[in-house]
Amino acid sequence: MDEQAYQLFDQQQKNRGINMEDVKEKLKNLKIETPSWGYGDSGTRFNVFHEEGVPTDAYGKIAEASRVHQLTGAAPAVALHIPWDQVDNFTALKHYAQDQGVTIGAINPNLFQDDDYKLGSLTHHDEKVRNNAVTHMLSCIDIAREVDSKAISLWLADGTNYPGQGDFRKRKQWLQSSLEKVYGELDSDMRLLIEYKFFEPAFYHTDLPDWGMAYDYANKLGNQADVLVDTGHHPQGTNIEHIVSYLLDEKKLGGFHFNNRKYADDDLMVGAINPYEIFLTFYQISDVLYENDLGKRSKAEDIIYMLDQAHNIEAKTPAIIQSILNVQRLFAKSLLINREEVAYHQNRGNVLQAERAVRGAFELDVTPLLHAMREEQGLPVDPFEAYMHRHEAVTESKGGSKR
Amino acid sequence: MDEQAYQLFDQQQKNRGINMEDVKEKLKNLKIETPSWGYGDSGTRFNVFHEEGVPTDAYGKIAEASRVHQLTGAAPAVALHIPWDQVDNFTALKHYAQDQGVTIGAINPNLFQDDDYKLGSLTHHDEKVRNNAVTHMLSCIDIAREVDSKAISLWLADGTNYPGQGDFRKRKQWLQSSLEKVYGELDSDMRLLIEYKFFEPAFYHTDLPDWGMAYDYANKLGNQADVLVDTGHHPQGTNIEHIVSYLLDEKKLGGFHFNNRKYADDDLMVGAINPYEIFLTFYQISDVLYENDLGKRSKAEDIIYMLDQAHNIEAKTPAIIQSILNVQRLFAKSLLINREEVAYHQNRGNVLQAERAVRGAFELDVTPLLHAMREEQGLPVDPFEAYMHRHEAVTESKGGSKR
Amino acid sequence: MDEQAYQLFDQQQKNRGINMEDVKEKLKNLKIETPSWGYGDSGTRFNVFHEEGVPTDAYGKIAEASRVHQLTGAAPAVALHIPWDQVDNFTALKHYAQDQGVTIGAINPNLFQDDDYKLGSLTHHDEKVRNNAVTHMLSCIDIAREVDSKAISLWLADGTNYPGQGDFRKRKQWLQSSLEKVYGELDSDMRLLIEYKFFEPAFYHTDLPDWGMAYDYANKLGNQADVLVDTGHHPQGTNIEHIVSYLLDEKKLGGFHFNNRKYADDDLMVGAINPYEIFLTFYQISDVLYENDLGKRSKAEDIIYMLDQAHNIEAKTPAIIQSILNVQRLFAKSLLINREEVAYHQNRGNVLQAERAVRGAFELDVTPLLHAMREEQGLPVDPFEAYMHRHEAVTESKGGSKR
Amino acid sequence: MDEQAYQLFDQQQKNRGINMEDVKEKLKNLKIETPSWGYGDSGTRFNVFHEEGVPTDAYGKIAEASRVHQLTGAAPAVALHIPWDQVDNFTALKHYAQDQGVTIGAINPNLFQDDDYKLGSLTHHDEKVRNNAVTHMLSCIDIAREVDSKAISLWLADGTNYPGQGDFRKRKQWLQSSLEKVYGELDSDMRLLIEYKFFEPAFYHTDLPDWGMAYDYANKLGNQADVLVDTGHHPQGTNIEHIVSYLLDEKKLGGFHFNNRKYADDDLMVGAINPYEIFLTFYQISDVLYENDLGKRSKAEDIIYMLDQAHNIEAKTPAIIQSILNVQRLFAKSLLINREEVAYHQNRGNVLQAERAVRGAFELDVTPLLHAMREEQGLPVDPFEAYMHRHEAVTESKGGSKR
Repeated sequence: MDEQAYQLFDQQQKNRGINMEDVKEKLKNLKIETPSWGYGDSGTRFNVFHEEGVPTDAYGKIAEASRVHQLTGAAPAVALHIPWDQVDNFTALKHYAQDQGVTIGAINPNLFQDDDYKLGSLTHHDEKVRNNAVTHMLSCIDIAREVDSKAISLWLADGTNYPGQGDFRKRKQWLQSSLEKVYGELDSDMRLLIEYKFFEPAFYHTDLPDWGMAYDYANKLGNQADVLVDTGHHPQGTNIEHIVSYLLDEKKLGGFHFNNRKYADDDLMVGAINPYEIFLTFYQISDVLYENDLGKRSKAEDIIYMLDQAHNIEAKTPAIIQSILNVQRLFAKSLLINREEVAYHQNRGNVLQAERAVRGAFELDVTPLLHAMREEQGLPVDPFEAYMHRHEAVTESKGGSKR
Repeated sequence: MDEQAYQLFDQQQKNRGINMEDVKEKLKNLKIETPSWGYGDSGTRFNVFHEEGVPTDAYGKIAEASRVHQLTGAAPAVALHIPWDQVDNFTALKHYAQDQGVTIGAINPNLFQDDDYKLGSLTHHDEKVRNNAVTHMLSCIDIAREVDSKAISLWLADGTNYPGQGDFRKRKQWLQSSLEKVYGELDSDMRLLIEYKFFEPAFYHTDLPDWGMAYDYANKLGNQADVLVDTGHHPQGTNIEHIVSYLLDEKKLGGFHFNNRKYADDDLMVGAINPYEIFLTFYQISDVLYENDLGKRSKAEDIIYMLDQAHNIEAKTPAIIQSILNVQRLFAKSLLINREEVAYHQNRGNVLQAERAVRGAFELDVTPLLHAMREEQGLPVDPFEAYMHRHEAVTESKGGSKR
Repeated sequence: MDEQAYQLFDQQQKNRGINMEDVKEKLKNLKIETPSWGYGDSGTRFNVFHEEGVPTDAYGKIAEASRVHQLTGAAPAVALHIPWDQVDNFTALKHYAQDQGVTIGAINPNLFQDDDYKLGSLTHHDEKVRNNAVTHMLSCIDIAREVDSKAISLWLADGTNYPGQGDFRKRKQWLQSSLEKVYGELDSDMRLLIEYKFFEPAFYHTDLPDWGMAYDYANKLGNQADVLVDTGHHPQGTNIEHIVSYLLDEKKLGGFHFNNRKYADDDLMVGAINPYEIFLTFYQISDVLYENDLGKRSKAEDIIYMLDQAHNIEAKTPAIIQSILNVQRLFAKSLLINREEVAYHQNRGNVLQAERAVRGAFELDVTPLLHAMREEQGLPVDPFEAYMHRHEAVTESKGGSKR
Repeated sequence: MDEQAYQLFDQQQKNRGINMEDVKEKLKNLKIETPSWGYGDSGTRFNVFHEEGVPTDAYGKIAEASRVHQLTGAAPAVALHIPWDQVDNFTALKHYAQDQGVTIGAINPNLFQDDDYKLGSLTHHDEKVRNNAVTHMLSCIDIAREVDSKAISLWLADGTNYPGQGDFRKRKQWLQSSLEKVYGELDSDMRLLIEYKFFEPAFYHTDLPDWGMAYDYANKLGNQADVLVDTGHHPQGTNIEHIVSYLLDEKKLGGFHFNNRKYADDDLMVGAINPYEIFLTFYQISDVLYENDLGKRSKAEDIIYMLDQAHNIEAKTPAIIQSILNVQRLFAKSLLINREEVAYHQNRGNVLQAERAVRGAFELDVTPLLHAMREEQGLPVDPFEAYMHRHEAVTESKGGSKR
């Protein structure tokens, strides 16, 4: 029935004026970096539940990421977290990844676990601590060089828990100065992605709480610094897609950490709570992918898409596959928006019809398209089922019982 | 292509084990009451933009509602707001509605516009004001009798703007006492629906802020009092479907006011901001529609579904049609959840598969099903387009151009 | 100057018509239970920073709690968390506590750390797990008997992370049934306190998300079941004091977990973020302490006040002292509200004057009153400074420097 | 007793190392602009309750503002809203204000009430509408010239209610272009204050939702463009004082609209809901008032403080007085923070002591200071009571009864 379903779908879309070859090409170009830490155990402050057999070192995580890429064809790179993924020989790790068919993606410095960082890292009141944090970031640049990664992805956990605890303006100046030191050491083809988060692990204030501050720092640093948007890092009610469109228009959107949340930074699977929000974000991105301004378009094409999820109770690798499929699904839908139709109604103030033109694409079931694309790529049409099937087979052959 | 699409869809669903006749029957039984006030001008505190030609009295609004029902087949009743819809002769109004093919739905007393209600109505510190408010509600019961309505729908706007302004516990006791007087006058086949809202127009506290209080009052009053859930009346992050399931299980869910919101009580069209949330609400309802416990099931079948939207910038009647279509669409999807599959995975702790089984139904495009159903009912397959087409024809024949 | 300040303060309050002896008596009667877990290390999901010298077992925590009580005179009981505070001989622990001048307060069963509880405890789909959880609660009742505690304080961490993961209504019924088994084993002078929390560690839904559900379960169980309000467990914008007043009026408010938060459940020190909110909560409580209805008044007098904070970055014992002082301060202010003045203005609809009458008491500096009270009790006037002074002395005598 | 209280207070503060003369001077320099619209009726979308005798034209509002200034000595300017305050002869209005002892403050263009603005003003898809909006702003500049006002204060109500309704990036470019036209016409001593608001009256997106966008536009425009912070215009959980400190450090904070809110943009009286938040904002400002960097300090001294409240149920003029008193009170407290003490603890990572040093100033009762200051200024010590007293006298002499 898949074939029949695709024929029907293809015809319907062509009738709507959609260029299906172009859609499929853009869809095939969508690459989603997976996080090494997503393959290991994670939890809440109350507990970490252990999943049997999950990898605990960089090699194991890369092997897992490779499995994901083999099944989805969409996850060719793995982001590392340092020192969680520290190894003695990063060149060897790079070669191992290559052998597995993947590459090393963004390098993520960890500035929140050392005891010295209890009250801050790049913004700590003690210059020695600030310098240590800068040094750690510089060593991440070295690692990036060694593994051929072109991106340093900074999530700064700095902040305060109480009014008065820290001096906001001094911390701001320290952050600026610390970032300048890091930025100055980037190779010319490297990018610094600056993430923001309005809450947690610091509760009263975070030093990079919103896109505005991340953007301002990135502007002051220069062209190699961009903003990274984590979809779970905003106050309730925030229009994330509007922020995304603003950054796109300013050519300052460097990447995404995709996940979904209900209330705080829940780090749930993409599309599990509010799929329409992710779709609307892709609507803004797709819009720039069809933009005449080459600078804006190529910047949009260079966005680094990453997952950043915590699989506290669900099986980790299939959860990552699931999210990749959801990202593909929602991106595919955004490509099926008839942009001329939308513009026509926007230009006439036809509120209802414009809304309908956008939402209409979301209502489509793109399964036939995704299946067809995967068949063309020699991939299983449903990578999730394929994974579960293999996994169960393996588990059974070991005489074990699944969960 | 519609026919081919439906054949394919029907086959796919049967293969999934879905009883399509049952789905269609439940779908045809879905009735959505439209609010008279949704056909007239509304606005924000900053401005009310006027739409030309909108009805200003009860007769005009009923005529408009009738048009909606003719096109959708799903909106046979109109809720009235008193005194906005006050007429000299309610019997005549009832007959007019019947002639138009619709009936009068819930009667909504207005307890917020009289000058006396500035500091409260049923909870006012002045006994005279409380009595006036009770009297107004009793007159609404009289109207209900006259128009054959079986539901009084109370949204209480009472609350305070400042700490200290009112005595919470006295107001609680006054509310209890006022409601008892009203409840005592209901006919035995009438229901009192108690709505809650955690914010606005009072800003510091509202006397009925959440489902818990509405439920407690309803419990104390008796079997004819139920809770009404307005989907826009909750704090951010609230799991509305969980509340719905709780009330369903307690047989205390009387009705819905459907709309959608981004931040506060935006009263936007259903499904325009977060369609998945509405779907998940219907998932809970559908679950009870297949329940063995007859008491719970029949209570769920008696839910009164109403729209409560404010069309501040969009054309009103087509906005109502749009929302009806969305409610149908999301209810239809919820009926396509394979409940055995979900239960199977829930019982094994298969988090990923259970989530996938629910969301999978949401991902389906139910357009073929809805079109087929409407064809069977002799309705236009796309009531929105049908309305716009007629409306434009009319507008053009008048030589004018709208907007 | 303290003496002069108090004379002046005392005269000012008497001029306002305040009965200062009564205020002092009520203030002296305020007892705040401290949590054993507040004396040990805690952290976020990202890290736990270790404080040198913090106690790791029940004995050490009780010793610390005893120090706090000696300095404040307001913290005579320590809440235990089982199995964190498991010991071989609870009778010996009780005697140790007595020797230290404190008693054992509420017993808190831990239903979230065992591997079996990954998908729930009292609401788990597997009956065996539910039974284990009930058994654990019953063993906590045994411990309570052994240590002469009269309260079991249940925070249920159960919930789901994804739509479809669990069956809301089945879980509701399992919870009801599990709680009934526990409730049936309470001694007649024991209370079951039921806490609610709308988010975390489960992210999509929690089985006890709000006061409404906690209250409904407590009602169904009986007179020995009450609701426990944790000030950090509500959605943003919630009027907590209104909920408190409702529960007080229903005689179903059993206790508090005090803390403060900026966004989520930050578990920061009481009064550190929004002191006015705590004051307004005490305003509702004070109101009932002056109530003529003896049943309501005595229920309010029996409220168990507890701290529940996580001291992630600050020194733990002084943080607890700080919070106790803040609770006293804010309660003291609430006792200085001239209730006749407030009622006078409420009854006339004088919004501004009523607000001013309440807030005016908050604006008072009650330091002279608190110092006078502590002097009468033979306590240091500033227990925080006294602690820091002693602690520094000790640290210095050891030749070390703290932090 | 006031004299004795002040002596005591003064001595206590001096003992803490506070320079009380400096505090009083800074306090006397605090000027708070009142909004003409605050003196007239306002309401919610549900109703506007009318207060008898409130002024309806600019002259009446200025007269009322003059009364407020006479009593408080702190409100020498009145902001106008155009066209609400349109008069034939603005020079005459300026002279009238001068005769009344006040001046005209910021000019606020209204870009949300004209029918043309239903779908936007400066960002409307129709160039004609955009030009009209620009023209209106230019006419406001003319008015500013005529009345000697030096500030144009722009709150842009533009936004969309539905996904797809508008093109985010086109609107961004139109806004940039519109603002440039306005900015180009400013006199060299005029400022353009750019306000942001994340929600309402548009519900899906607003074109200026947050400080980040307002700041970016202001940066692009130039030195005469600054950001205006309305304390009620942020998502829940936002750390407003952090934003304020950032803008101060960038010398881009132009002004404030003070008010308070519980959930959305409630426009309640300053300090009525969360006084600590306002205090913490003033803590950041005070910090810069003691800054060595002259550029930052003088920019902070030039902040325009304005009230922006809606008095829906309370008497309007006394509500404004009340808010002025609260602003003074909270600013006074912030000046009593011992900044050396705070810095000492910050530099040592003494979290608890630093928090305590800041909050300690908030806990002080500054009534003696405020009374002393007002006596020095020849003002009534309690302007609110003075107003109510006069007002009651007037009302009684008219034979009327006060509410």
